[in-house]
Amino acid sequence: MNIKIPTLIIDRKKVYRNIRNMQSKLLETNTILRPHFKTHQLIEIGHIFKQQGINMITVSSVSMAMKFANNGWNNITIAFPVNILEIEEINNLAGSITLNLLVESVESLTFLTKELKNFVGIFVKIDSGYNRTGLISEDPQIDAIVNQVSKNSLLKFEGFLTHAGHTYNAKGQGEILNILQNSNDMLTHLKQKYVTDFPDIKISYGDTPSCSLANNFDGFDEIRPGNFVYYDVMQYHIGSCSLEEIAVSVACPVVAKHNSRNEIVVYGGAVHLTKENIEADNNFKLYGYIVNYTEDGWTEPIPGAFVYSLSQEHGLIKLPDKYMNNINIGDVVGILPIHSCLCANLLNDDYKIIN
Amino acid sequence: MNIKIPTLIIDRKKVYRNIRNMQSKLLETNTILRPHFKTHQLIEIGHIFKQQGINMITVSSVSMAMKFANNGWNNITIAFPVNILEIEEINNLAGSITLNLLVESVESLTFLTKELKNFVGIFVKIDSGYNRTGLISEDPQIDAIVNQVSKNSLLKFEGFLTHAGHTYNAKGQGEILNILQNSNDMLTHLKQKYVTDFPDIKISYGDTPSCSLANNFDGFDEIRPGNFVYYDVMQYHIGSCSLEEIAVSVACPVVAKHNSRNEIVVYGGAVHLTKENIEADNNFKLYGYIVNYTEDGWTEPIPGAFVYSLSQEHGLIKLPDKYMNNINIGDVVGILPIHSCLCANLLNDDYKIIN
Repeated sequence: MNIKIPTLIIDRKKVYRNIRNMQSKLLETNTILRPHFKTHQLIEIGHIFKQQGINMITVSSVSMAMKFANNGWNNITIAFPVNILEIEEINNLAGSITLNLLVESVESLTFLTKELKNFVGIFVKIDSGYNRTGLISEDPQIDAIVNQVSKNSLLKFEGFLTHAGHTYNAKGQGEILNILQNSNDMLTHLKQKYVTDFPDIKISYGDTPSCSLANNFDGFDEIRPGNFVYYDVMQYHIGSCSLEEIAVSVACPVVAKHNSRNEIVVYGGAVHLTKENIEADNNFKLYGYIVNYTEDGWTEPIPGAFVYSLSQEHGLIKLPDKYMNNINIGDVVGILPIHSCLCANLLNDDYKIIN
Repeated sequence: MNIKIPTLIIDRKKVYRNIRNMQSKLLETNTILRPHFKTHQLIEIGHIFKQQGINMITVSSVSMAMKFANNGWNNITIAFPVNILEIEEINNLAGSITLNLLVESVESLTFLTKELKNFVGIFVKIDSGYNRTGLISEDPQIDAIVNQVSKNSLLKFEGFLTHAGHTYNAKGQGEILNILQNSNDMLTHLKQKYVTDFPDIKISYGDTPSCSLANNFDGFDEIRPGNFVYYDVMQYHIGSCSLEEIAVSVACPVVAKHNSRNEIVVYGGAVHLTKENIEADNNFKLYGYIVNYTEDGWTEPIPGAFVYSLSQEHGLIKLPDKYMNNINIGDVVGILPIHSCLCANLLNDDYKIIN
């Protein structure tokens, strides 16, 4: 594969299939897929989405919106509480594309009404139980925000948006589908309250675990999963994907062997894979599974092989005997990452698309 | 400070002082400071070191060596087991600067003896107890490596190098100084064994906790701490520095307030600060302390304020009542990072040097 340094290997066929699988759930429904591009952040992967008919996307920062707007994407939701310090960039973006912003306070909205120079759509961010951002559905600020939005000719009330990030901590499919249903109930209730006055408003829902595990999205006007395009070991542990569906691995050169402790050291550390890990009760931390590269991709994970520690540039890998004996310094091994979004962010300049 | 997005703020005065404090320990000794540049990776910070008389540096990758070599640094040790897949880049570097490589196996060395086209220095990497990389001091490969190096006119045996990374897990100054002493004993023993045949060989020792806490470096020919230039919350917890010595903070815009749970949300997440954290027994994870910016820097940490969770772009901060009441959306707060090396690596394009 001609790898010299830690490199994100992206399997195009798996990417296509992951996108098509998500789209297939929405056939014959009115629910739109507005994928979150924070996972890959790559123009080429955006192109694959476009080939599959995707026109509207989600991003998590103004700079990411600018990157994709400059590449022809003209309908973007920035799914992050609006950062009013970037008003100049927001005005520029809003002057050239259809831009939706998230508001969760009268304070932010008041600033926007004063400083906006171009038209934007406004989603009210609702906290459906993750307790990270958003207003609870009974918050009186919702009424005040909707009211203020409706009075400003540069603003359009687009509806209610939530990210059910607590699915990442849920135990099993049942609990995840419960979260989806509760979010659906909460946002549907809000929509019903306002839909007479604002007939076009939407409910926008996101997160890869529930969008992967659910098959019924009735009531949602759009879904915004992002991670599903690549998946990762964390999603596998949640149950959102099979190991075979993970579409990225990190190719790492072997730089040292320690036979006495069944370990190899690879060039591939926290600055390539992130410190994200999966913890087990026995004080064990998992930083990735190990695969071997083949002519057209990679094998399934080697049983009993795993990354158990990361320094800035070093990855420490435990290997069973029979693999220790066959591995040499200068070989390249693959690591299935724990969290593909953070890993891809680090390897944004060092990637290779295969297949 | 005109901050719009998460930005690493580097206090030049503190950087100078941290460098001078480390240098002052080596006055009237023969021990040389060869600082590790993986922490900052910045040309401007390199310039400060140069002004303080530093000529020889350490890096952790070939690409980092190339960056600093292109900026006039001509004596560089790559303190990472040599990645033989980058032999072409190594040959180019070795053709233009004084380059030292780390070897810990006959396998890597045999490759180098065949493929090297220019002169390099070779340090044998010794494992002084961290169990990450290196040979144990009794390993017969050491003899084989030294022997093979001495027979090749493009190679010079430079001595023994160790990184005592286990100081990061040590409990208190006594244990850390013990590690330093044990490493010193181990490497001195090795040096004595070979110094008659190779009178110029050196002992090279690194890691910020022990270099910060020790005052006696007798026996070490050079030390290679890196983190000390910035320090961070982890070093403060180890006892290597005071909070006041931490020379970097991450300026983050406030994007949401949740008064009911004493929380603010900032634009500043895992892609800016990394997922590195300090864990407490009660299942609590600390991702950073909070400071306020002043005219010429930042305050000491706000008591009872801390980052307790990070998503990709979001930072979740707990604040005491009196600070909640005074903070507004669009304000900028500072976060003292847990691990400045990983944080600076992420903000390599988004930094500002003050003072």
